[in-house]
Amino acid sequence: MSDTLAVTGLETPVPVVDLDVVERNLSRMQGYADAHGLALRPHIKTHKLPRFAQAQVALGAVGITCQKLGEAEVMADAGLDDILISYPLIGPHKARRLAALARRVTMRAAIDNPLALETVALAGQEAGRQIGVLVEFDSGMHRTGVGSVDEALTLIAQVRAADGLRFDGLMTYPSSAATVEFVRAIKDAGVDLPIVSGGGTPRAAHAHEIGGVTEMRVGTYIYNDRTLVEVGAATLEDCALLVHATVISRPAGDRAILDCGSKTLSSDLIPRGASAGYGLLVDYPDAVIDRLSEEHGMVDLSRSGAKPALGERVRILPNHVCVVTNLHDEVVVSRNGIVEGIWPVAARGMTR
Amino acid sequence: MSDTLAVTGLETPVPVVDLDVVERNLSRMQGYADAHGLALRPHIKTHKLPRFAQAQVALGAVGITCQKLGEAEVMADAGLDDILISYPLIGPHKARRLAALARRVTMRAAIDNPLALETVALAGQEAGRQIGVLVEFDSGMHRTGVGSVDEALTLIAQVRAADGLRFDGLMTYPSSAATVEFVRAIKDAGVDLPIVSGGGTPRAAHAHEIGGVTEMRVGTYIYNDRTLVEVGAATLEDCALLVHATVISRPAGDRAILDCGSKTLSSDLIPRGASAGYGLLVDYPDAVIDRLSEEHGMVDLSRSGAKPALGERVRILPNHVCVVTNLHDEVVVSRNGIVEGIWPVAARGMTR
Repeated sequence: MSDTLAVTGLETPVPVVDLDVVERNLSRMQGYADAHGLALRPHIKTHKLPRFAQAQVALGAVGITCQKLGEAEVMADAGLDDILISYPLIGPHKARRLAALARRVTMRAAIDNPLALETVALAGQEAGRQIGVLVEFDSGMHRTGVGSVDEALTLIAQVRAADGLRFDGLMTYPSSAATVEFVRAIKDAGVDLPIVSGGGTPRAAHAHEIGGVTEMRVGTYIYNDRTLVEVGAATLEDCALLVHATVISRPAGDRAILDCGSKTLSSDLIPRGASAGYGLLVDYPDAVIDRLSEEHGMVDLSRSGAKPALGERVRILPNHVCVVTNLHDEVVVSRNGIVEGIWPVAARGMTR
Repeated sequence: MSDTLAVTGLETPVPVVDLDVVERNLSRMQGYADAHGLALRPHIKTHKLPRFAQAQVALGAVGITCQKLGEAEVMADAGLDDILISYPLIGPHKARRLAALARRVTMRAAIDNPLALETVALAGQEAGRQIGVLVEFDSGMHRTGVGSVDEALTLIAQVRAADGLRFDGLMTYPSSAATVEFVRAIKDAGVDLPIVSGGGTPRAAHAHEIGGVTEMRVGTYIYNDRTLVEVGAATLEDCALLVHATVISRPAGDRAILDCGSKTLSSDLIPRGASAGYGLLVDYPDAVIDRLSEEHGMVDLSRSGAKPALGERVRILPNHVCVVTNLHDEVVVSRNGIVEGIWPVAARGMTR
């Protein structure tokens, strides 16, 4: 009996991460940040794994970014000690948890409204130490973020006046031409900005062109996915996570059914993309995963000359890898096709 | 300090189940099945909770349906003892696990191809007992299932000839006019069909009109969801699971941001439905959750006269409740707005 297990021997469906690709992706992004004098603060939402967060910091990241407190708690428990919550926290529950975190690690939080300011201030007062605040502005995403320079200046003044808070700068997502303009306007108003945090893997290679940005918040670059290949920000060889699946039925000549549905791949499509379907069958690029049930992936083979056989194992590049890791309690990590470990996705499902 | 916790005091986002509604839904479906002499074999994919599976059996269900072996293992561990795997199992891993299950509980499996037949037969031989097989046919879903009566008859003959297997009947999803025809053709060929298993909550109230069907596989009826309301199979009052969320930002007059994104609600839309967005804000029915990030729900308020305030708690009826429970490690169960328990979603993420 062999001591090694090939990834092709794993029961499917299963997400498999190639550590060589991960390491290359991490080094490349850190090298880019270093070359341009940018701080790198990776977003852990993609991998949700303390070990990869530690690897990112070991390579030179200044700290990590988390969206939710639950993610930050997992990471702090694992020894990560400089964490930005890039998300408005609202209410006494969140204040209490942020305070508990701030007592043991360096915490910052982004805010875009007075209630979030109040929550973070309460946490700082409870923790007995100042919490750094970034004011989030809208650079075109129309998600969170204040919409005008005036609103930002008002919030900044309120942060400066609040007990328990320290104004550290600005945050936005994604980095854009509007970012440059906004940052300049705030500086022109006489505000010092130690940190201007921009984000997004798709345009990460252009971060140094966004005047004023000091810090990169990027997540997906560790694994990459079909969306990033679609926009030209990654190649197939840069994609570290593939879902291995099995053809469990071939009910018609032009149809294969895979043992992975929306519970494995998610229902995310490529936004505004030309690529159809719920993921790319890397060995059958002309096949289309055109429908998903929760546990079934329906593959249209009509445009695919080669057709996978019943029982065959196939590999799928997910459209959006962050939501895929969130579906799985564990990922398999591998090198050269050999299993190196099965890691619990510790910060999975941490929506609070 | 009070001994009770109101659901309105829970940290958000959080899925909250109303036990009164669940009990009403379970009784109603069992009553329908009993009234029409149909066996009820609920699909646990919706709730994924051993306690609700036990409640379904206590009310009269003949057993349960699971899609994957991992779900069946959780349910068998909890004492459920009559389980149908409504899914083609392929390969030696699956055979071994099915055999282990068959040694301790009554197992059946659906097949639609020779490799699945071989897998189940191997399990029956390993377990030293016959495993009941249902042959799946396609009644219009174009998912799994044999496409013709001839193929079904061939598979049935192979099942009857195989060691370790017992032919128990047919299975399809959903029940339809094509179901009636197919079943009649198989019977006309002289095949005895102890079980004909049909499925689907949307048309469950018409199951007794589908001649030949003996057993109902339904799942979603326990909670119901926006899709079922859309097709007229449930009312809002029949919906047992709502996601409670908080307005964490109001960056523009017509836009609210919720603390629930695709990691909380999933990206499932209403199939071919008239209702837009990623869920229904039950107290703001004219608001539209028109975009999701992983942790943000973007709400378009332009057509909503009433607009939720920053910090306000809101309740969301999910489009597709089965994938929502699969995202959460726990659900809160409640009665009259008071928390009765926090239950681990034991069969969550069991994709293998």
